[in-house]
Amino acid sequence: MNNSEGFKNVLIVGLGLIGGSIAKRLKEISYPGDVYGFDRDLEILQSAYSDSLIKNDSINSLEGLEDILILFCTPVLSFNEALESVISLQPSEKAVFTDTLSTKTQILELLISESESIKNRFVLSHPIAGSERSGLENSKESLFVDRITVISPHETNENHHIDRVSDFWRELGSSIKILSCKEHDSIFAKTSHLPHVISYALMQSLFGKLHEKTFEFSGGSLEDYTRIASSDPIMWKDIFISNNENILKSIEDFELSLKELKDLIKQQDEEAILKFLQDTKTLRDNSLENY
Amino acid sequence: MNNSEGFKNVLIVGLGLIGGSIAKRLKEISYPGDVYGFDRDLEILQSAYSDSLIKNDSINSLEGLEDILILFCTPVLSFNEALESVISLQPSEKAVFTDTLSTKTQILELLISESESIKNRFVLSHPIAGSERSGLENSKESLFVDRITVISPHETNENHHIDRVSDFWRELGSSIKILSCKEHDSIFAKTSHLPHVISYALMQSLFGKLHEKTFEFSGGSLEDYTRIASSDPIMWKDIFISNNENILKSIEDFELSLKELKDLIKQQDEEAILKFLQDTKTLRDNSLENY
Repeated sequence: MNNSEGFKNVLIVGLGLIGGSIAKRLKEISYPGDVYGFDRDLEILQSAYSDSLIKNDSINSLEGLEDILILFCTPVLSFNEALESVISLQPSEKAVFTDTLSTKTQILELLISESESIKNRFVLSHPIAGSERSGLENSKESLFVDRITVISPHETNENHHIDRVSDFWRELGSSIKILSCKEHDSIFAKTSHLPHVISYALMQSLFGKLHEKTFEFSGGSLEDYTRIASSDPIMWKDIFISNNENILKSIEDFELSLKELKDLIKQQDEEAILKFLQDTKTLRDNSLENY
Repeated sequence: MNNSEGFKNVLIVGLGLIGGSIAKRLKEISYPGDVYGFDRDLEILQSAYSDSLIKNDSINSLEGLEDILILFCTPVLSFNEALESVISLQPSEKAVFTDTLSTKTQILELLISESESIKNRFVLSHPIAGSERSGLENSKESLFVDRITVISPHETNENHHIDRVSDFWRELGSSIKILSCKEHDSIFAKTSHLPHVISYALMQSLFGKLHEKTFEFSGGSLEDYTRIASSDPIMWKDIFISNNENILKSIEDFELSLKELKDLIKQQDEEAILKFLQDTKTLRDNSLENY
Protein backbone atom coordinates (compact mmCIF):
# COMPACT_ATOMS: atom_id res chain seq x y z
CA MET A 1 0.00 0.00 0.00
CA ASN A 2 2.85 2.37 0.86
CA ASN A 3 5.15 2.78 -2.10
CA SER A 4 7.22 5.78 -1.13
CA GLU A 5 10.15 5.55 1.23
CA GLY A 6 9.71 6.50 4.90
CA PHE A 7 11.50 9.49 6.40
CA LYS A 8 14.88 8.96 8.07
CA ASN A 9 13.93 11.63 10.59
CA VAL A 10 10.70 13.10 11.93
CA LEU A 11 10.45 16.29 13.97
CA ILE A 12 7.18 16.78 15.86
CA VAL A 13 6.60 20.45 16.63
CA GLY A 14 4.21 20.78 19.59
CA LEU A 15 3.84 17.78 21.89
CA GLY A 16 0.21 18.14 22.92
CA LEU A 17 -2.65 15.71 22.36
CA ILE A 18 -2.00 15.42 18.62
CA GLY A 19 1.81 15.59 18.58
CA GLY A 20 2.01 13.26 21.57
CA SER A 21 -0.33 10.75 19.94
CA ILE A 22 1.79 10.76 16.79
CA ALA A 23 4.96 10.16 18.83
CA LYS A 24 3.30 7.28 20.73
CA ARG A 25 2.04 5.68 17.54
CA LEU A 26 5.49 5.95 15.88
CA LYS A 27 6.99 4.23 18.93
CA GLU A 28 4.29 1.56 18.89
CA ILE A 29 4.89 0.66 15.24
CA SER A 30 8.69 0.90 15.64
CA TYR A 31 8.88 3.53 12.91
CA PRO A 32 12.25 3.05 11.21
CA GLY A 33 13.21 6.76 11.29
CA ASP A 34 14.45 8.76 14.29
CA VAL A 35 11.79 10.83 16.04
CA TYR A 36 12.64 14.23 17.51
CA GLY A 37 10.43 16.67 19.39
CA PHE A 38 10.16 20.42 19.75
CA ASP A 39 8.00 22.26 22.27
CA ARG A 40 8.34 25.73 23.69
CA ASP A 41 7.56 24.16 27.07
CA LEU A 42 10.84 22.46 28.01
CA GLU A 43 9.19 20.34 30.70
CA ILE A 44 6.92 18.73 28.12
CA LEU A 45 9.90 18.07 25.84
CA GLN A 46 11.73 16.40 28.71
CA SER A 47 8.67 14.42 29.71
CA ALA A 48 8.37 13.05 26.16
CA TYR A 49 12.10 12.29 26.20
CA SER A 50 11.93 10.40 29.49
CA ASP A 51 9.02 8.35 28.10
CA SER A 52 11.33 7.45 25.15
CA LEU A 53 8.88 9.06 22.72
CA ILE A 54 11.58 11.30 21.24
CA LYS A 55 15.35 11.08 20.88
CA ASN A 56 16.21 14.56 22.22
CA ASP A 57 15.74 16.33 25.56
CA SER A 58 16.61 19.69 24.04
CA ILE A 59 17.13 21.05 20.55
CA ASN A 60 19.42 23.73 19.14
CA SER A 61 19.87 22.81 15.52
CA LEU A 62 18.59 20.46 12.83
CA GLU A 63 21.98 20.33 11.16
CA GLY A 64 22.84 16.98 9.61
CA LEU A 65 19.20 15.78 9.50
CA GLU A 66 18.83 15.66 5.72
CA ASP A 67 15.80 13.47 5.08
CA ILE A 68 13.35 14.90 7.59
CA LEU A 69 9.59 15.36 7.92
CA ILE A 70 8.74 18.40 10.05
CA LEU A 71 5.25 18.11 11.46
CA PHE A 72 3.46 21.09 13.05
CA CYS A 73 0.95 20.16 15.78
CA THR A 74 0.28 23.55 17.36
CA PRO A 75 -2.86 25.64 17.79
CA VAL A 76 -3.55 27.49 14.52
CA LEU A 77 -2.53 30.94 15.75
CA SER A 78 0.73 29.60 17.23
CA PHE A 79 1.80 28.23 13.86
CA ASN A 80 3.59 31.39 12.75
CA GLU A 81 5.76 31.52 15.87
CA ALA A 82 6.44 27.77 15.67
CA LEU A 83 7.48 28.07 12.03
CA GLU A 84 9.88 30.92 12.88
CA SER A 85 11.39 28.80 15.66
CA VAL A 86 11.89 25.86 13.30
CA ILE A 87 13.45 28.07 10.61
CA SER A 88 15.92 29.34 13.23
CA LEU A 89 17.05 25.72 13.71
CA GLN A 90 18.16 25.77 10.05
CA PRO A 91 16.37 22.74 8.64
CA SER A 92 17.73 21.05 5.53
CA GLU A 93 16.64 22.52 2.20
CA LYS A 94 15.28 19.06 1.43
CA ALA A 95 13.07 18.94 4.54
CA VAL A 96 9.41 18.13 3.89
CA PHE A 97 6.78 19.88 6.00
CA THR A 98 3.27 19.04 7.07
CA ASP A 99 0.84 19.96 9.82
CA THR A 100 -2.28 18.80 11.68
CA LEU A 101 -4.09 22.13 11.92
CA SER A 102 -7.86 22.43 11.75
CA THR A 103 -7.98 25.35 9.32
CA LYS A 104 -6.03 25.59 6.09
CA THR A 105 -6.54 28.79 4.10
CA GLN A 106 -4.86 31.08 6.60
CA ILE A 107 -1.89 28.69 6.97
CA LEU A 108 -1.43 28.61 3.22
CA GLU A 109 -1.56 32.42 3.02
CA LEU A 110 1.07 32.62 5.73
CA LEU A 111 3.32 30.18 3.86
CA ILE A 112 2.94 32.15 0.64
CA SER A 113 4.06 35.31 2.40
CA GLU A 114 6.85 33.53 4.29
CA SER A 115 8.99 31.47 1.96
CA GLU A 116 8.51 30.12 -1.56
CA SER A 117 10.84 27.21 -0.87
CA ILE A 118 9.12 26.07 2.34
CA LYS A 119 5.67 26.54 0.84
CA ASN A 120 6.59 24.24 -2.06
CA ARG A 121 7.69 21.48 0.33
CA PHE A 122 4.75 22.00 2.73
CA VAL A 123 1.93 19.45 2.25
CA LEU A 124 -1.04 20.60 4.33
CA SER A 125 -2.70 17.81 6.34
CA HIS A 126 -5.55 17.52 8.80
CA PRO A 127 -6.04 14.25 10.66
CA ILE A 128 -9.73 14.12 11.65
CA ALA A 129 -9.22 12.98 15.20
CA GLY A 130 -9.18 14.64 18.54
CA SER A 131 -10.58 14.62 22.02
CA GLU A 132 -12.05 17.04 24.50
CA ARG A 133 -8.97 16.19 26.57
CA SER A 134 -5.79 18.00 25.65
CA GLY A 135 -2.07 17.74 26.38
CA LEU A 136 0.65 15.09 26.13
CA GLU A 137 -0.80 13.30 29.19
CA ASN A 138 -4.01 12.55 27.26
CA SER A 139 -2.36 11.50 24.01
CA LYS A 140 -2.69 7.91 22.82
CA GLU A 141 -1.30 5.56 20.18
CA SER A 142 -4.64 4.80 18.59
CA LEU A 143 -5.86 8.36 17.95
CA PHE A 144 -5.46 8.14 14.16
CA VAL A 145 -6.28 4.50 13.60
CA ASP A 146 -9.25 4.03 11.23
CA ARG A 147 -9.62 7.79 10.94
CA ILE A 148 -9.48 10.04 7.90
CA THR A 149 -6.62 12.43 7.22
CA VAL A 150 -7.50 15.19 4.78
CA ILE A 151 -4.61 16.31 2.59
CA SER A 152 -4.95 19.73 0.95
CA PRO A 153 -2.31 19.92 -1.77
CA HIS A 154 -1.62 23.29 -3.34
CA GLU A 155 -0.44 23.92 -6.87
CA THR A 156 3.30 24.06 -6.21
CA ASN A 157 3.42 20.85 -4.16
CA GLU A 158 5.33 18.04 -5.89
CA ASN A 159 3.50 14.72 -6.20
CA HIS A 160 6.47 12.97 -4.64
CA HIS A 161 6.07 15.02 -1.47
CA ILE A 162 2.31 14.53 -1.40
CA ASP A 163 2.83 10.76 -1.69
CA ARG A 164 5.41 10.62 1.08
CA VAL A 165 3.25 12.65 3.47
CA SER A 166 0.16 10.56 2.59
CA ASP A 167 2.08 7.36 3.25
CA PHE A 168 3.26 8.74 6.58
CA TRP A 169 -0.38 9.20 7.66
CA ARG A 170 -1.23 5.73 6.39
CA GLU A 171 1.54 4.35 8.63
CA LEU A 172 -0.27 6.03 11.52
CA GLY A 173 -3.45 4.17 10.62
CA SER A 174 -5.34 6.86 8.67
CA SER A 175 -6.93 6.72 5.26
CA ILE A 176 -6.45 9.73 2.98
CA LYS A 177 -8.98 12.08 1.42
CA ILE A 178 -8.11 15.09 -0.73
CA LEU A 179 -9.75 18.51 -0.45
CA SER A 180 -8.56 21.94 -1.55
CA CYS A 181 -7.85 24.39 1.28
CA LYS A 182 -10.98 26.32 0.42
CA GLU A 183 -13.21 23.23 0.33
CA HIS A 184 -11.64 21.99 3.56
CA ASP A 185 -12.37 25.20 5.46
CA SER A 186 -15.88 25.48 4.09
CA ILE A 187 -16.84 21.87 4.91
CA PHE A 188 -15.26 21.76 8.35
CA ALA A 189 -16.87 25.08 9.29
CA LYS A 190 -20.14 23.18 8.98
CA THR A 191 -19.36 19.65 10.17
CA SER A 192 -16.93 20.41 12.99
CA HIS A 193 -16.59 24.11 13.84
CA LEU A 194 -20.34 24.82 13.92
CA PRO A 195 -21.08 21.90 16.31
CA HIS A 196 -18.40 23.26 18.63
CA VAL A 197 -19.90 26.78 18.52
CA ILE A 198 -23.33 25.28 19.27
CA SER A 199 -22.05 23.12 22.09
CA TYR A 200 -20.26 26.01 23.84
CA ALA A 201 -23.35 28.23 23.42
CA LEU A 202 -25.70 25.50 24.67
CA MET A 203 -23.58 24.93 27.78
CA GLN A 204 -23.49 28.68 28.53
CA SER A 205 -27.26 28.86 28.11
CA LEU A 206 -27.92 25.89 30.40
CA PHE A 207 -25.49 27.01 33.11
CA GLY A 208 -27.03 30.49 32.99
CA LYS A 209 -30.40 29.01 33.91
CA LEU A 210 -29.68 25.81 35.85
CA HIS A 211 -26.30 26.54 37.45
CA GLU A 212 -24.90 23.54 39.31
CA LYS A 213 -28.08 21.55 38.59
CA THR A 214 -27.30 21.38 34.86
CA PHE A 215 -26.18 17.75 34.86
CA GLU A 216 -28.20 16.57 37.90
CA PHE A 217 -30.99 14.95 35.91
CA SER A 218 -29.27 14.21 32.63
CA GLY A 219 -28.36 10.59 33.24
CA GLY A 220 -25.37 10.76 30.93
CA SER A 221 -26.84 11.85 27.61
CA LEU A 222 -26.32 15.58 28.12
CA GLU A 223 -22.71 14.88 29.10
CA ASP A 224 -22.24 13.01 25.84
CA TYR A 225 -23.97 15.68 23.81
CA THR A 226 -21.92 18.54 25.25
CA ARG A 227 -18.56 16.78 25.54
CA ILE A 228 -16.96 18.99 22.88
CA ALA A 229 -17.65 22.09 25.01
CA SER A 230 -14.80 20.87 27.22
CA SER A 231 -12.35 21.05 24.30
CA ASP A 232 -9.13 23.05 24.50
CA PRO A 233 -10.16 26.77 24.60
CA ILE A 234 -6.99 28.05 22.89
CA MET A 235 -7.23 25.56 20.03
CA TRP A 236 -10.85 26.48 19.41
CA LYS A 237 -10.44 30.23 19.87
CA ASP A 238 -7.78 30.00 17.13
CA ILE A 239 -10.12 28.04 14.83
CA PHE A 240 -12.97 30.51 15.39
CA ILE A 241 -10.63 33.39 14.50
CA SER A 242 -8.84 31.79 11.55
CA ASN A 243 -11.93 30.34 9.85
CA ASN A 244 -14.05 33.33 10.75
CA GLU A 245 -16.08 33.93 7.61
CA ASN A 246 -16.98 30.29 6.93
CA ILE A 247 -18.02 29.79 10.56
CA LEU A 248 -20.20 32.92 10.61
CA LYS A 249 -21.93 31.71 7.46
CA SER A 250 -22.51 28.27 8.96
CA ILE A 251 -23.95 29.81 12.16
CA GLU A 252 -26.35 31.91 10.09
CA ASP A 253 -27.50 28.86 8.10
CA PHE A 254 -28.07 27.01 11.34
CA GLU A 255 -29.99 29.94 12.86
CA LEU A 256 -32.39 29.78 9.91
CA SER A 257 -33.04 26.06 10.39
CA LEU A 258 -33.48 26.57 14.12
CA LYS A 259 -35.94 29.42 13.51
CA GLU A 260 -37.88 27.23 11.08
CA LEU A 261 -38.32 24.48 13.67
CA LYS A 262 -39.00 27.02 16.44
CA ASP A 263 -41.78 28.62 14.38
CA LEU A 264 -43.41 25.24 13.79
CA ILE A 265 -43.30 24.54 17.53
CA LYS A 266 -44.72 28.00 18.25
CA GLN A 267 -47.56 27.38 15.78
CA GLN A 268 -48.10 23.94 17.34
CA ASP A 269 -48.21 22.61 13.78
CA GLU A 270 -48.14 18.89 14.54
CA GLU A 271 -48.09 17.74 10.95
CA ALA A 272 -45.26 20.04 9.88
CA ILE A 273 -43.17 19.25 12.98
CA LEU A 274 -43.57 15.53 12.30
CA LYS A 275 -42.51 16.05 8.69
CA PHE A 276 -39.45 18.09 9.76
CA LEU A 277 -38.34 15.37 12.21
CA GLN A 278 -39.12 12.48 9.84
CA ASP A 279 -37.29 14.12 6.92
CA THR A 280 -34.27 14.83 9.10
CA LYS A 281 -34.16 11.29 10.48
CA THR A 282 -34.54 9.80 6.98
CA LEU A 283 -31.78 11.98 5.52
CA ARG A 284 -29.48 11.18 8.43
CA ASP A 285 -30.14 7.43 8.47
CA ASN A 286 -29.84 7.10 4.68
CA SER A 287 -26.73 9.23 4.55
CA LEU A 288 -25.00 7.15 7.24
CA GLU A 289 -25.77 3.95 5.36
CA ASN A 290 -23.24 5.08 2.77
CA TYR A 291 -20.34 5.08 5.24
CA MET B 1 -33.50 -1.06 50.11
CA ASN B 2 -36.96 -2.06 48.87
CA ASN B 3 -39.40 -2.18 51.77
CA SER B 4 -42.72 -2.21 49.98
CA GLU B 5 -44.20 -5.35 48.52
CA GLY B 6 -43.87 -6.01 44.78
CA PHE B 7 -46.90 -6.08 42.48
CA LYS B 8 -48.63 -9.41 41.83
CA ASN B 9 -49.34 -8.23 38.29
CA VAL B 10 -47.82 -5.69 35.91
CA LEU B 11 -49.47 -4.46 32.71
CA ILE B 12 -47.16 -2.72 30.25
CA VAL B 13 -49.14 -0.46 27.92
CA GLY B 14 -47.13 0.17 24.74
CA LEU B 15 -44.41 -2.36 23.84
CA GLY B 16 -41.92 -0.09 22.13
CA LEU B 17 -38.32 0.65 23.14
CA ILE B 18 -39.26 1.61 26.71
CA GLY B 19 -42.06 -0.85 27.36
CA GLY B 20 -40.08 -3.65 25.70
CA SER B 21 -37.00 -2.88 27.79
CA ILE B 22 -39.07 -3.00 30.97
CA ALA B 23 -40.51 -6.38 29.97
CA LYS B 24 -37.04 -7.76 29.18
CA ARG B 25 -35.63 -6.53 32.47
CA LEU B 26 -38.54 -8.04 34.44
CA LYS B 27 -37.87 -11.36 32.72
CA GLU B 28 -34.13 -11.08 33.40
CA ILE B 29 -34.59 -10.50 37.12
CA SER B 30 -37.38 -13.13 37.35
CA TYR B 31 -39.80 -10.56 38.72
CA PRO B 32 -42.15 -12.44 41.05
CA GLY B 33 -45.37 -10.91 39.60
CA ASP B 34 -47.05 -11.82 36.31
CA VAL B 35 -46.28 -9.50 33.39
CA TYR B 36 -48.97 -8.65 30.81
CA GLY B 37 -48.73 -6.47 27.71
CA PHE B 38 -51.05 -4.21 25.79
CA ASP B 39 -50.35 -2.68 22.41
CA ARG B 40 -52.72 -1.42 19.75
CA ASP B 41 -50.49 -3.24 17.25
CA LEU B 42 -51.46 -6.90 17.72
CA GLU B 43 -48.35 -8.14 15.91
CA ILE B 44 -46.12 -6.48 18.48
CA LEU B 45 -48.15 -7.96 21.30
CA GLN B 46 -47.78 -11.41 19.77
CA SER B 47 -44.09 -10.92 19.16
CA ALA B 48 -43.58 -10.04 22.85
CA TYR B 49 -45.69 -13.07 23.79
CA SER B 50 -43.69 -15.45 21.62
CA ASP B 51 -40.47 -14.11 23.21
CA SER B 52 -42.00 -14.99 26.61
CA LEU B 53 -41.82 -11.35 27.65
CA ILE B 54 -45.53 -11.24 28.52
CA LYS B 55 -48.12 -13.80 29.63
CA ASN B 56 -50.85 -12.89 27.14
CA ASP B 57 -51.13 -12.89 23.35
CA SER B 58 -54.34 -10.86 23.45
CA ILE B 59 -56.27 -8.93 26.07
CA ASN B 60 -59.98 -8.32 26.62
CA SER B 61 -60.31 -7.65 30.32
CA LEU B 62 -58.28 -7.06 33.45
CA GLU B 63 -60.86 -8.77 35.63
CA GLY B 64 -59.45 -10.70 38.56
CA LEU B 65 -56.10 -8.90 38.49
CA GLU B 66 -56.43 -7.15 41.84
CA ASP B 67 -52.91 -6.11 42.78
CA ILE B 68 -51.70 -4.62 39.51
CA LEU B 69 -49.31 -1.91 38.34
CA ILE B 70 -50.43 -0.40 35.01
CA LEU B 71 -47.51 1.24 33.28
CA PHE B 72 -48.01 3.57 30.29
CA CYS B 73 -45.11 3.60 27.78
CA THR B 74 -46.68 5.43 24.84
CA PRO B 75 -45.81 8.64 23.02
CA VAL B 76 -47.17 11.60 25.04
CA LEU B 77 -50.04 12.44 22.69
CA SER B 78 -51.16 8.78 22.51
CA PHE B 79 -51.58 8.65 26.28
CA ASN B 80 -55.21 9.77 26.26
CA GLU B 81 -56.26 7.06 23.83
CA ALA B 82 -54.21 4.43 25.70
CA LEU B 83 -55.80 5.42 29.01
CA GLU B 84 -59.30 5.11 27.50
CA SER B 85 -58.43 1.67 26.18
CA VAL B 86 -57.18 0.54 29.58
CA ILE B 87 -60.27 1.92 31.34
CA SER B 88 -62.42 -0.10 28.93
CA LEU B 89 -60.63 -3.24 30.22
CA GLN B 90 -62.12 -2.45 33.65
CA PRO B 91 -59.02 -2.45 35.83
CA SER B 92 -59.38 -3.08 39.56
CA GLU B 93 -60.20 -0.07 41.73
CA LYS B 94 -57.03 -0.88 43.62
CA ALA B 95 -54.82 -0.73 40.48
CA VAL B 96 -51.79 1.55 40.76
CA PHE B 97 -50.79 3.52 37.66
CA THR B 98 -47.53 4.98 36.44
CA ASP B 99 -45.95 6.05 33.15
CA THR B 100 -42.63 6.71 31.43
CA LEU B 101 -43.58 9.84 29.50
CA SER B 102 -41.15 12.68 28.85
CA THR B 103 -43.50 15.52 29.78
CA LYS B 104 -45.63 15.67 32.90
CA THR B 105 -47.82 18.79 33.24
CA GLN B 106 -50.13 17.92 30.37
CA ILE B 107 -50.54 14.32 31.55
CA LEU B 108 -51.48 15.52 35.04
CA GLU B 109 -54.04 17.98 33.58
CA LEU B 110 -55.55 15.17 31.57
CA LEU B 111 -55.80 12.93 34.66
CA ILE B 112 -57.47 15.72 36.62
CA SER B 113 -60.10 16.11 33.94
CA GLU B 114 -60.50 12.34 33.50
CA SER B 115 -61.02 10.60 36.84
CA GLU B 116 -60.37 11.62 40.44
CA SER B 117 -59.90 7.99 41.46
CA ILE B 118 -57.32 7.13 38.78
CA LYS B 119 -55.48 10.41 39.27
CA ASN B 120 -55.07 9.65 42.99
CA ARG B 121 -53.53 6.25 42.21
CA PHE B 122 -51.38 7.54 39.32
CA VAL B 123 -47.75 8.16 40.31
CA LEU B 124 -46.06 10.01 37.44
CA SER B 125 -42.62 8.64 36.52
CA HIS B 126 -39.96 9.39 33.92
CA PRO B 127 -37.03 7.00 33.57
CA ILE B 128 -34.16 9.04 32.08
CA ALA B 129 -33.10 6.54 29.49
CA GLY B 130 -33.67 6.10 25.82
CA SER B 131 -32.06 5.58 22.49
CA GLU B 132 -32.24 6.99 18.99
CA ARG B 133 -33.44 3.52 18.07
CA SER B 134 -37.11 2.81 18.70
CA GLY B 135 -39.41 -0.18 18.83
CA LEU B 136 -39.53 -3.53 20.62
CA GLU B 137 -36.76 -4.90 18.41
CA ASN B 138 -34.32 -2.34 19.86
CA SER B 139 -35.35 -2.73 23.49
CA LYS B 140 -32.85 -4.15 25.98
CA GLU B 141 -32.73 -5.41 29.57
CA SER B 142 -30.14 -2.92 30.73
CA LEU B 143 -31.82 0.31 29.59
CA PHE B 144 -32.63 1.50 33.12
CA VAL B 145 -29.66 0.10 34.98
CA ASP B 146 -27.68 2.84 36.76
CA ARG B 147 -30.05 5.47 35.38
CA ILE B 148 -32.22 7.99 37.18
CA THR B 149 -36.00 7.75 37.29
CA VAL B 150 -37.71 11.02 38.14
CA ILE B 151 -40.92 10.62 40.15
CA SER B 152 -43.31 13.59 40.12
CA PRO B 153 -45.78 13.02 42.93
CA HIS B 154 -48.86 15.22 43.06
CA GLU B 155 -50.78 16.27 46.16
CA THR B 156 -53.38 13.51 46.18
CA ASN B 157 -50.90 10.64 45.70
CA GLU B 158 -50.63 8.40 48.76
CA ASN B 159 -47.13 7.78 50.10
CA HIS B 160 -47.74 4.06 49.97
CA HIS B 161 -48.28 4.23 46.21
CA ILE B 162 -45.27 6.50 45.67
CA ASP B 163 -43.13 4.01 47.61
CA ARG B 164 -44.35 0.99 45.67
CA VAL B 165 -43.78 2.68 42.30
CA SER B 166 -40.33 3.92 43.40
CA ASP B 167 -39.37 0.42 44.49
CA PHE B 168 -40.54 -0.96 41.16
CA TRP B 169 -38.09 1.36 39.37
CA ARG B 170 -35.34 0.41 41.80
CA GLU B 171 -35.95 -3.24 40.87
CA LEU B 172 -35.33 -2.20 37.28
CA GLY B 173 -31.96 -0.77 38.27
CA SER B 174 -32.82 2.94 38.56
CA SER B 175 -32.22 5.38 41.36
CA ILE B 176 -35.04 7.79 42.22
CA LYS B 177 -35.15 11.60 42.20
CA ILE B 178 -38.21 13.67 43.01
CA LEU B 179 -39.33 16.74 41.01
CA SER B 180 -42.72 18.42 40.78
CA CYS B 181 -44.39 18.22 37.35
CA LYS B 182 -43.66 21.87 36.77
CA GLU B 183 -39.97 21.58 37.73
CA HIS B 184 -39.67 18.42 35.65
CA ASP B 185 -40.99 20.04 32.48
CA SER B 186 -38.95 23.19 32.94
CA ILE B 187 -35.65 21.34 33.55
CA PHE B 188 -36.09 18.74 30.81
CA ALA B 189 -37.04 21.44 28.31
CA LYS B 190 -33.48 22.67 28.78
CA THR B 191 -31.40 19.53 29.33
CA SER B 192 -33.14 17.15 26.95
CA HIS B 193 -35.76 18.76 24.69
CA LEU B 194 -33.55 21.71 23.65
CA PRO B 195 -30.62 19.46 22.61
CA HIS B 196 -33.03 17.48 20.46
CA VAL B 197 -34.39 20.66 18.81
CA ILE B 198 -30.81 21.78 18.16
CA SER B 199 -29.73 18.44 16.78
CA TYR B 200 -32.66 18.22 14.33
CA ALA B 201 -32.06 21.83 13.21
CA LEU B 202 -28.31 21.27 12.83
CA MET B 203 -28.88 18.19 10.67
CA GLN B 204 -31.36 20.07 8.46
CA SER B 205 -28.90 22.92 8.09
CA LEU B 206 -25.98 20.62 7.16
CA PHE B 207 -27.99 18.51 4.72
CA GLY B 208 -29.30 21.71 3.11
CA LYS B 209 -25.72 22.72 2.30
CA LEU B 210 -23.69 19.50 2.03
CA HIS B 211 -26.32 16.95 0.91
CA GLU B 212 -24.93 13.44 0.77
CA LYS B 213 -21.44 14.71 1.68
CA THR B 214 -22.55 15.64 5.20
CA PHE B 215 -20.84 12.72 6.92
CA GLU B 216 -18.07 12.12 4.37
CA PHE B 217 -15.35 13.87 6.32
CA SER B 218 -16.64 13.66 9.86
CA GLY B 219 -14.68 10.62 11.02
CA GLY B 220 -17.35 9.62 13.51
CA SER B 221 -17.64 12.68 15.74
CA LEU B 222 -20.48 14.34 13.81
CA GLU B 223 -22.37 11.03 13.88
CA ASP B 224 -22.02 10.97 17.66
CA TYR B 225 -22.98 14.61 18.01
CA THR B 226 -26.13 14.31 15.90
CA ARG B 227 -27.24 10.82 16.99
CA ILE B 228 -30.37 12.18 18.72
CA ALA B 229 -31.62 13.61 15.41
CA SER B 230 -32.41 10.00 14.47
CA SER B 231 -34.79 9.66 17.42
CA ASP B 232 -38.41 8.58 16.98
CA PRO B 233 -40.21 11.45 15.17
CA ILE B 234 -43.62 10.78 16.71
CA MET B 235 -42.27 10.65 20.25
CA TRP B 236 -40.42 13.94 19.76
CA LYS B 237 -43.22 15.70 17.88
CA ASP B 238 -45.41 14.89 20.89
CA ILE B 239 -42.84 16.26 23.33
CA PHE B 240 -42.41 19.47 21.29
CA ILE B 241 -46.19 19.96 21.29
CA SER B 242 -46.89 19.03 24.90
CA ASN B 243 -44.02 20.99 26.49
CA ASN B 244 -44.39 23.85 24.05
CA GLU B 245 -43.94 26.90 26.24
CA ASN B 246 -40.94 25.62 28.17
CA ILE B 247 -39.22 24.51 24.98
CA LEU B 248 -39.80 27.84 23.24
CA LYS B 249 -38.31 29.63 26.24
CA SER B 250 -35.27 27.33 26.22
CA ILE B 251 -34.75 27.90 22.48
CA GLU B 252 -34.85 31.66 23.02
CA ASP B 253 -32.31 31.47 25.85
CA PHE B 254 -30.05 29.40 23.64
CA GLU B 255 -30.42 31.81 20.72
CA LEU B 256 -29.16 34.60 22.99
CA SER B 257 -26.05 32.61 24.00
CA LEU B 258 -25.43 31.67 20.37
CA LYS B 259 -25.75 35.30 19.31
CA GLU B 260 -23.32 36.34 22.04
CA LEU B 261 -20.66 33.91 20.80
CA LYS B 262 -21.41 34.74 17.15
CA ASP B 263 -20.92 38.44 17.83
CA LEU B 264 -17.56 37.79 19.47
CA ILE B 265 -16.49 35.72 16.45
CA LYS B 266 -17.72 38.47 14.12
CA GLN B 267 -15.74 41.09 16.04
CA GLN B 268 -12.71 38.74 16.02
CA ASP B 269 -12.37 39.51 19.73
CA GLU B 270 -9.73 36.90 20.62
CA GLU B 271 -9.65 37.70 24.32
CA ALA B 272 -13.43 37.58 24.80
CA ILE B 273 -13.79 34.37 22.74
CA LEU B 274 -11.07 32.72 24.83
CA LYS B 275 -12.83 33.82 28.04
CA PHE B 276 -16.19 32.49 26.76
CA LEU B 277 -14.68 29.09 25.92
CA GLN B 278 -12.58 28.88 29.09
CA ASP B 279 -15.52 29.84 31.33
CA THR B 280 -17.75 27.28 29.63
CA LYS B 281 -15.16 24.52 29.92
CA THR B 282 -14.48 25.34 33.58
CA LEU B 283 -18.20 25.38 34.46
CA ARG B 284 -18.74 22.11 32.62
CA ASP B 285 -15.71 20.30 34.03
CA ASN B 286 -16.37 21.49 37.61
CA SER B 287 -20.06 20.69 37.37
CA LEU B 288 -19.37 17.15 36.16
CA GLU B 289 -16.96 16.54 39.04
CA ASN B 290 -19.99 16.59 41.35
CA TYR B 291 -21.61 13.58 39.69
